[in-house]
Amino acid sequence: MRRHFEEIEDELKNRLLRMGGLVEEMMSLSIQALVERSSANFAKIDESESVANQMHMDIDEHSFKLIALHQPAAMDLRFIMAAVKINSDLERIGDQSVNISESVAEILKHPPISGKLYEIPAMVENARGMLKDGLDAFVKKDVSMAWAVVKRDDIVDRLKDDAQRDLTRLMESDTAAVARAFQLILISRSLERIADHATNIAENVVFMVQGIDIRHNAGALPAGSVPPPANP
Amino acid sequence: MRRHFEEIEDELKNRLLRMGGLVEEMMSLSIQALVERSSANFAKIDESESVANQMHMDIDEHSFKLIALHQPAAMDLRFIMAAVKINSDLERIGDQSVNISESVAEILKHPPISGKLYEIPAMVENARGMLKDGLDAFVKKDVSMAWAVVKRDDIVDRLKDDAQRDLTRLMESDTAAVARAFQLILISRSLERIADHATNIAENVVFMVQGIDIRHNAGALPAGSVPPPANP
Repeated sequence: MRRHFEEIEDELKNRLLRMGGLVEEMMSLSIQALVERSSANFAKIDESESVANQMHMDIDEHSFKLIALHQPAAMDLRFIMAAVKINSDLERIGDQSVNISESVAEILKHPPISGKLYEIPAMVENARGMLKDGLDAFVKKDVSMAWAVVKRDDIVDRLKDDAQRDLTRLMESDTAAVARAFQLILISRSLERIADHATNIAENVVFMVQGIDIRHNAGALPAGSVPPPANP
Repeated sequence: MRRHFEEIEDELKNRLLRMGGLVEEMMSLSIQALVERSSANFAKIDESESVANQMHMDIDEHSFKLIALHQPAAMDLRFIMAAVKINSDLERIGDQSVNISESVAEILKHPPISGKLYEIPAMVENARGMLKDGLDAFVKKDVSMAWAVVKRDDIVDRLKDDAQRDLTRLMESDTAAVARAFQLILISRSLERIADHATNIAENVVFMVQGIDIRHNAGALPAGSVPPPANP
């Protein structure tokens, strides 16, 4: 029975990793479109969204059946509940990637603003790293890695605030740049949301492994929790 | 045993309704702050956010224990899984209400733009109605009412697009209005997100009652589903 449940767990894990790989690619394609000022990736992103939507529903159904059929308890149940939530975060990362590509489509209607992308490249690097590490932490049940993702979210929040401040100033000084600057702000907000979803994934890893809920407390320590590593 | 589970169900339902009432009030307080140009509600909204965060975690833990202890199947399990997801949507409605109040705080730093709030009052009316009806549909297990909420989401999406178009034009024609117009756009986006969360709640009602997943298909009919009412 134990052996059997481990196989079930691997199957669910693999489905989530395929979904994670797909939405990570959607994010990369949408950012590539921005950097290269090209619409070449839009069709592929739309196509991937349909696939991601179907995977989202399939993983949910699969998880539901696992609970109904196997009536798991303790860590096994936490694993499935975490999978349900991670599934929903991954689907939303796909949605945000579509939002980014829609903003890029608007930006392509105008000439570039001095080629500058403000804080966006740094946000992409962090958000992508957080998503990758969040999924790695899930696969390896690595609580230290999960905490490091949670901590990193602050960096992305600050970058988003900086981008919003700089681009609002640009709009105030140059009306011709308003439409493009506004879309860049929306892109920075989508990247911040992607980092939030990666953070949610990491929080679910801590819940899955340790059974404690660290949400709404990022950085603080709920009673009975294991401290985050000193140098996450 | 059946009787016992009904009591459990009522307890979970009541918790979600209290949470729903709280976030509905947060939304109303944030919009009142905008309309009356007053910061009087900000402290109350912050306080409610802490309460909502705690309720969010408590309801999740309660739901988890219900599954672990009672090993429910079929409709009972669907009810709990729907409750877990509705809980998360309600918490995010609270977050969006906080976002709205933060935008209002920025707006209050400037004189009003001709007192106009563009499409925002219409968006509030629809989003609030959708949240109320979504929760009613959940309590009454009313699939027709749930479908009506799903359909209504299109109205809010269109209003958001209109607001964004009108306010972008304002920014392009009047640099002095940029900061305020930008915050109004963010508020319209928060309201659209609130309507999306209400839609998610309604979709979960259909799943709970009929066991079918209508997400990613809004309006279309998955195989085996009951058609939506002719006049939702």
